[in-house]
Amino acid sequence: MTFAATVLTLYPDMFPGPLGLSLAGRALERGDWTCQTVQIRDFAQDKHRTVDDTPAGGGAGMVLKADVMARALDSVADARPILAMTPRGKPITQERIRAIAQGPGVTLICGRFEGFDERLFEARPAIEEVSLADIVLSGGETAAIAILDACIRLLPGVMGAPSSGDDESFESGLLEYPQYTRPYEWEGRTIPEVLRSGDHARIEAWRKHMAEDTTRLRRPDLWERHGGDPGLSASGARRENKD
Amino acid sequence: MTFAATVLTLYPDMFPGPLGLSLAGRALERGDWTCQTVQIRDFAQDKHRTVDDTPAGGGAGMVLKADVMARALDSVADARPILAMTPRGKPITQERIRAIAQGPGVTLICGRFEGFDERLFEARPAIEEVSLADIVLSGGETAAIAILDACIRLLPGVMGAPSSGDDESFESGLLEYPQYTRPYEWEGRTIPEVLRSGDHARIEAWRKHMAEDTTRLRRPDLWERHGGDPGLSASGARRENKD
Repeated sequence: MTFAATVLTLYPDMFPGPLGLSLAGRALERGDWTCQTVQIRDFAQDKHRTVDDTPAGGGAGMVLKADVMARALDSVADARPILAMTPRGKPITQERIRAIAQGPGVTLICGRFEGFDERLFEARPAIEEVSLADIVLSGGETAAIAILDACIRLLPGVMGAPSSGDDESFESGLLEYPQYTRPYEWEGRTIPEVLRSGDHARIEAWRKHMAEDTTRLRRPDLWERHGGDPGLSASGARRENKD
Repeated sequence: MTFAATVLTLYPDMFPGPLGLSLAGRALERGDWTCQTVQIRDFAQDKHRTVDDTPAGGGAGMVLKADVMARALDSVADARPILAMTPRGKPITQERIRAIAQGPGVTLICGRFEGFDERLFEARPAIEEVSLADIVLSGGETAAIAILDACIRLLPGVMGAPSSGDDESFESGLLEYPQYTRPYEWEGRTIPEVLRSGDHARIEAWRKHMAEDTTRLRRPDLWERHGGDPGLSASGARRENKD
């Protein structure tokens, strides 16, 4: 099955962009996914092809018009999830990415300027307002590219080894354990002995412990959601906070 | 002053990518920022130009070698901040973006596969490990593009109106209030009357209230950091939870 991505944007030339290379690019060539763009401006109805107007009540910037955005969306809307990229949205999660990647595709709405007329979301409740990160982008396009990247790598056949991904950050609710590779010694630093022991049970226990400790120290928010005690390390021993 | 971005990557052709168009693209043409790429593979030393190797202790995927990565970084490292894109990193914030945008530039390290040999970060403590979002990307490149996008729009002269940005999501620690624009009535929905009142004090109070309520309902985590009481709306009146 082909995963169909449709992007509503004022800058269709931004797509597939970086997704035309490497893993996602090879998947695109193979037909594992398709990348359709819709030029929002084509749905303006005046001779100046106006897509935005000044904010009601005053203020800086321009607001994307609800009528133009709704016409653009209605031209493509189907059973696929519809995500609007906006800092006001719900933070995207790996769980949501996985659910989208298992479906027929996704429609992504990219804003610019001061965002969308709020009535778009009231009148088209199928739209999910989604935020990539707590930073402000110049538009939704770079967020859409990151979200598509995360979906595409999960499509069947796209990642080399089918087991790749199981141990990754967020998949288990934890950050990943630290990784090492050759050379054994580099700048006076060696690979932890346990990883050279050949004892798979010990290696697994060490990695679990390190994943838990890394999460607790670096991301107390994830650790709490995972059900961890903020003062306890993975092994149950109470530890000093490192900072 | 020109903001100098340097990206260490196995896919230099991904840059500037979408940042070559629109706001960031015009800023690039004007010389407000520069985009230099460093091909990590050029710093491999064997005849196969090997950049990665299997994880010590076993497991799927490949790990980027500390020696190759360090040589690539050492070739460009200077006083600019150095960010490595990794899901194990500290979540990027608008505050950090603003600080970076006020400086001379940034060096971004993009990984692929199962990440970096941990010793890279031990041996080069200037590297900040940064996470864009709690999702797994195919590599650091799409994260680097989003982070550069967020920096570039803040450079002097890049955004049209200097006041644009002050009221935006995250700048005040709150999500933005809802925006509306013409037409006044669309699909039976009208613009809130207060925004047509011309009473700037009332409009400002309404927007503050809506920004606070939106943040409390959509992002209890941000609201708590902002110092808000989870059960109280902005105006101090206790409200029913909407879900």
